[in-house]
Amino acid sequence: MSEWFETLDGLHDRMWQRLSRGVADAKSPSRQPTFATMRDGWPEARTVVLRAATRETATLEVYTDLRSDKIESLRATPRAALHVWEDKQRLQIRLQAQVEILSGDTVADRWEKIGAGGRQSYGKRPDPGTQLDSALDYEITASFDAFAVLSCRIEAIDLTHLGDDHRRATYRRDADWRGQWRSP
Amino acid sequence: MSEWFETLDGLHDRMWQRLSRGVADAKSPSRQPTFATMRDGWPEARTVVLRAATRETATLEVYTDLRSDKIESLRATPRAALHVWEDKQRLQIRLQAQVEILSGDTVADRWEKIGAGGRQSYGKRPDPGTQLDSALDYEITASFDAFAVLSCRIEAIDLTHLGDDHRRATYRRDADWRGQWRSP
Repeated sequence: MSEWFETLDGLHDRMWQRLSRGVADAKSPSRQPTFATMRDGWPEARTVVLRAATRETATLEVYTDLRSDKIESLRATPRAALHVWEDKQRLQIRLQAQVEILSGDTVADRWEKIGAGGRQSYGKRPDPGTQLDSALDYEITASFDAFAVLSCRIEAIDLTHLGDDHRRATYRRDADWRGQWRSP
Repeated sequence: MSEWFETLDGLHDRMWQRLSRGVADAKSPSRQPTFATMRDGWPEARTVVLRAATRETATLEVYTDLRSDKIESLRATPRAALHVWEDKQRLQIRLQAQVEILSGDTVADRWEKIGAGGRQSYGKRPDPGTQLDSALDYEITASFDAFAVLSCRIEAIDLTHLGDDHRRATYRRDADWRGQWRSP
């Protein structure tokens, strides 16, 4: 028997297990990927919460405020990099995804499920990023109109396992997720 | 007395304390920022190790292999976003920096200090990212010629404190780091 990190399929399977775990478990590292986009010739990065991970279609979902700056970035360039460091697994997950911004009726089912507390993350007034005279000079509303789902269609996966040996493998949608070992 | 997260200066001070801590303490969240760059119209993100943080000049240092793909990205676009989530502080640190790639004599002092174990991270053969037939089909060398220091000159800071209230503030080099509250 080989260890999971010794085979291309084992690494790929483990990644999807960890992403699924991130959706289910608020304390999992994969719960909070770093989400990088581009704007005006600069990279940007921030934490997001992973809400769905579907291996069959290789898509992830993240929620955001429709007026946040990442929406503006994604409207200009609908591409994101997602990054997770799974410390106990010693596994770095690097993803690149095409991002579709969904809002309105299409996402009413997600809105129903997130509950009153979670909804307060969407619809702050004034819009996120607006200059304020003092720190708390904003209102919390819960506005379905401000609720957006970022549907992330993964195009490329880059996994590195930092065990006693280092192993790195890449996978691409356009190669039907066939893995390729790479020098780490 | 106000809490540190209630004032613009308090937030800014705390950020530099945490970054300094990251340099000194391998277990600190700021030890391992996510480092985002751009390449061929795509954002990229990976973990790096924070090696220096100097408030006076607002610069950070990160080490890498001179043949790694992030060097190629930075040669095309010498800009990076650095991201840290300081869980216990409930503080998200988002930075944008101009990056200068240093190697050779200029960085011989850093090379001297990192020790034999650390040096093995620089100079793998074949070059990082090269396709391999099997996972361990590479050699570890310790090569000063492959050692690069990324000197990151911070241009913009975006801090969010997620306490009972959420507070967000931005700071810019070209405004002499004067803080500005923003809607979170």
